[in-house]
This record gives sequence, structure tokens and C-alpha cells, in this order.
Amino acid sequence: MKTIIFAAVISVFSATALAKAPIGIVIHGGAGTISRDSMNPAQEQAYHAMLAHAVNQGYKVLERGGNSLDAVTAAVTVLEDSPLFNAGKGAVYTFDESHELDASIMDGRNRAAGAVAGVTNVKNPILLARAVMEKSVHVMLAGKGAEQFAKEQQLELVDNNYFNTEFRYEALKRAKQAIAPQPHQAALPYDPAWKMGTVGAVAIDRNGNLAAATSTGGMTAKRYGRIGDAPVIGAGNFADQQCAVSATGHGEFFIRYQVASDICARVKYQQKSAQAAATEVLAELKAVGGDGGVIVVDSKGQLSWVFNTEGMYRARKTEGGEVLSEIFASSH
Amino acid sequence: MKTIIFAAVISVFSATALAKAPIGIVIHGGAGTISRDSMNPAQEQAYHAMLAHAVNQGYKVLERGGNSLDAVTAAVTVLEDSPLFNAGKGAVYTFDESHELDASIMDGRNRAAGAVAGVTNVKNPILLARAVMEKSVHVMLAGKGAEQFAKEQQLELVDNNYFNTEFRYEALKRAKQAIAPQPHQAALPYDPAWKMGTVGAVAIDRNGNLAAATSTGGMTAKRYGRIGDAPVIGAGNFADQQCAVSATGHGEFFIRYQVASDICARVKYQQKSAQAAATEVLAELKAVGGDGGVIVVDSKGQLSWVFNTEGMYRARKTEGGEVLSEIFASSH
Repeated sequence: MKTIIFAAVISVFSATALAKAPIGIVIHGGAGTISRDSMNPAQEQAYHAMLAHAVNQGYKVLERGGNSLDAVTAAVTVLEDSPLFNAGKGAVYTFDESHELDASIMDGRNRAAGAVAGVTNVKNPILLARAVMEKSVHVMLAGKGAEQFAKEQQLELVDNNYFNTEFRYEALKRAKQAIAPQPHQAALPYDPAWKMGTVGAVAIDRNGNLAAATSTGGMTAKRYGRIGDAPVIGAGNFADQQCAVSATGHGEFFIRYQVASDICARVKYQQKSAQAAATEVLAELKAVGGDGGVIVVDSKGQLSWVFNTEGMYRARKTEGGEVLSEIFASSH
Repeated sequence: MKTIIFAAVISVFSATALAKAPIGIVIHGGAGTISRDSMNPAQEQAYHAMLAHAVNQGYKVLERGGNSLDAVTAAVTVLEDSPLFNAGKGAVYTFDESHELDASIMDGRNRAAGAVAGVTNVKNPILLARAVMEKSVHVMLAGKGAEQFAKEQQLELVDNNYFNTEFRYEALKRAKQAIAPQPHQAALPYDPAWKMGTVGAVAIDRNGNLAAATSTGGMTAKRYGRIGDAPVIGAGNFADQQCAVSATGHGEFFIRYQVASDICARVKYQQKSAQAAATEVLAELKAVGGDGGVIVVDSKGQLSWVFNTEGMYRARKTEGGEVLSEIFASSH
């Protein structure tokens, strides 16, 4: 497991900067069984390039004085538009060979939140989650109702087959073979690879405000209108004034263990850093069989990633630093 | 605001009982604008009778050595079958004049959880939530998929019009008149009366295990596949080894403020009683405009209710005591 702590180096040198928070953003593209053996150099390079592009798009927002909410929205939109990740364009297939997407967003300033579950025709679910937060009195919308709201909000709609990719279709076929012995049960064997690729971002802006965003295509071969942790505030996404978290992993565990809000509760009630709290929670999760990872930021501007899997697609950029992107648990 | 603290009186007198936890159950039938003026004595009596019946059904399970999970299931099933509460039979109407029900359940022993959202034809959504917990690998199922799972699990299905009641239809008509000026917006004005009546139960059994269950018909005139807090683990329902909570109120606030899991986080990380933690959280919620109430139990067997509204339908029964049921904030 690898964690990273950033110091606000730049503020040491500038009296004016001292009054300002160090800006920064960290993103993820899913955690799971990611080994060097399973990727060729070209694939690795493609992931690094897309992670860098996404984190840069988010960072640019912060750099020009924008808020953390806009930064995480920008980064996650880029990740949704890439076929490399299980969100937006690259969403996995359901058992019925379609795509159902989930997303959520939260503004740490005032705990405003928006979430959508099971949408099939919205190009960027994170933009719909944000519209729910800003343009409705609700927090969570699902299915056809969420899509009707998307239409009224004039968000970009697509046919469901926009989300088709050959790579994910092959994954569905493999998943179906694996579950064929018990086709009528909800007791799907869980393979972390089936849902790897959920994306997310957390950021801190010049005013020290935090935000978190998470988006996913869910679990390959999912049935029964299954809702995972990504659209569940407190499970796959959370932000308050002291801490913001975006999570990826075996969603059922992340809901039961309230991963995102538990990390922030330890920050608030036990005065831990977000990184220390996340390390504890992910270790406890591993002990009960819950695989996954999180990205976190706290009000001191410390941006970290913590995961208990072989790898996690991830990148960060903080003030005065270059983009750092990593894939495997041990990057060196 | 009125809170109640129970002492485990019986264990003082019995050496064998000392090793055992004091059993107890507390239930609610919704919090909101409930004034004496708005009810006649016959109505009051009907509510008290049904609350007593439900709490007794749950208590009987505990008394014969059953676990807290079975107790909360039994109590909530009774409340769902009554037309008096906004859950099961008495569910409110959606904007489209149908009914969409939500429920969740959680076992504090191991944090197993089940939740369903937007089901239209399952007589007892709490039984479906429990089936999701026990018979599927998932935690949360929604809509048609949840109903397909209910069918496979051979749960009792009903036509949606089973949930029709004249009283709730009148409430829908009033709600539609109130929102008529902005019929195409998601920005429904919120009236607490439109969702009053969510039901729930928390209990502690002879082994000291806790459980929580919550069920609702949601908000009158709801649209867009709105999901409230009742099926969101951590918001409207939560249980771990130290604390269990069922909540009722303005769901959007309960999701954003993680009411159920925040109460339990304060118990765990700040060594507060569940009652003290709930009192704090409901006061903080009131300060930001969030109306509602909770019932809580902690591992010491302290069962409490806390609400920041005019009233909450509620009842409890603990070892050696009679049923206490109350409706208004000040009962005497």
C-alpha cells in the first residue's frame, strides 16, 4: 500500500500565499487486480496520458481561481468521456447487455449533494448529479425519473449503445460464463475485475473548500436494478468542510461500512488526518473482505490515496508540483 | 423536545439476568407537524392502539429469545400493514398517482444490510429489504429489478392500487394544488406533512445485538424517481455493534448530514450515549432547516427518541415495563 502526503511548500515562500490554501486535486480511475503482467506498455501509457489529461483539466480550474466543485466536475467529465474507465463512455454491461450508470457529487462548503442511479441515456452522469444538486430540491434520483429530469435540464442525451465497447462486451461474456451455473440467483460470485474502473476526484480550492465527485458504470453483469456505492452519499462519495472522499471498490462493503463518511467522521471526531483515517478504514475493510481504494483531501490540503488492492489508477497535481500518475501498488 | 432514558432495572435484581442484556424495542411512525388540534380523540386512540400493537409484536420476539433483527422486522411489518402510516398499505401517492415504496434493514452484529427503492407491487417492502440482505450479494436494489427479485423470492405481491387510500389521495390533490404554479420544475416546495409517516424500529436482544429497520412511501407528489433517506444506509437507517438508528424526516437533509451513521459515529468515536449523540445531531439539523426525528438504541440498552418537530408517532417497550406510546412533543 502506498500513500502520499503533500506539503504546502509554496506557502513557505510567499507571504500573500500564506493566507491562501494550497490548491490541489487527486483523481482515481478504479482500484482492483491490476498487474504489470496484464498490461502492455502502450496500454499503460494510454492510462497515464488520460489520467494526466483529466487531472490537468481539473487543476486548471483551480489555478484560475475556480472552486473545487468545478474542478472535480471537470476532471470526472474527462474520465467519463474516455473509454478506458468504467464510467460514462466506458461503462460496463449489465446482464441484459445494456448500460446503467450512477454518479454523485458533493460540495463540502454546505454539504449540498446530488446523486443519480440507473440512468441509461445521459452522456455525462456527473453533470446530471450536479444538476440534481443545484436545480432540484432532491438529492437522489433514479432510473426513468432521473432521465426525465436530465431532459428537462437539457443535458446531452445519447442512445444507450453510445456506451458500447468491444472490451467491455468481452468482459460481460466472460462474466456470464462464470455465473452460468446459477443463472437465476442473485448470488453472483463477485469478481473485482467486473467493476474495476469507477472514477472520481476530490479537490481543494484557493478558499480551502473541498468537493468530491464519483461516477461509475457499476458491476459487469449486474441485475435487479443493483445500486452500488458510487451514488450513495456517505458510501462512495462524501465532502464536508474538513474532508472529502471519493471511493472505488466492492460497493456493497462500501455501503455497509460507510467508507466515505466514516473516514470524514474520524477526521472530525478523532482529529486524524484524512490520510490516516483512510488508511485505518481501508485496513478494517480488508479484514472483512472488502476490496477497494479511496482518494481523500482534508482542510489542511493534504491529498492522499489509499487502497488495499493490487493497483489503482490514480493521479494528482498540487501547487508547484508536476502531475504524478500511478497504476500499480508499487510504482518503482 | 422530549427524550427518554431507560435503566436496566431488572438486571439489578437477578444474578442470571446480570449476564444478559436488557431487551427492548422502540418504534416510530413518522415525525412532523402533529398538533392536538388536528386530531380528534378517536384518531389519537387509533394511533396509540396501532403503535402498541406493533411494539408488542416486536417485543414478543425478543421476550421468547429471538434476535433484534426479527423483532424490528415484525414491528415494521405491522406498521406497513396499517393504513395509518406512510409505509406499506398507507403509502402516499406519487405525482403520477401511483405508489413507490422504499425500505431498508441493517443487522448490527455484522453490518449486513439490505435496501430497496421505488418498488410498486411488494406488499411488505421491509421483507424485500431483508431478502436482499440475506438472499442476494447486493445491498441495494431499485425499481423493476427489485421487483423481479421479490418475485423470485416468492414474496407477497399486490397490485399497486392495494396502496390506495382516500386520505392519501386527498393529500396528493392538496399537494398538486400547492405546486401548480411551477408544474414543470423539480423545485417542489417542501411541506413536512407530505412525507410524514415513515415508520421504523430499533431493538436490542438478549445477546445485546442491535438492529434497525425503516420503511416509507416517500414524499407525496414525488417525481423523477426521487429516493429519500429511508433506503439509504447511513442516512435513514444504520446499525453496528454499538448503536442502531431509524430516522424519519426531510430525507434530503438526512442524506446530506448522514444522520443515522453520524449519530453512531459520535457514539463510537466520542463515547457518547446514542441519546446524547442523537440530541446533538437533531439540533444541528434543525439549525440548517432539517426537520425530523430518530429512534436510537445503544449497546448499553438505552432506547431513546429525539425529534425537532411538533410531534412524532412513537412507542417503546423494555424489560419489566409497560408499553409507552406518545404522539405530541409534550405528552402531559
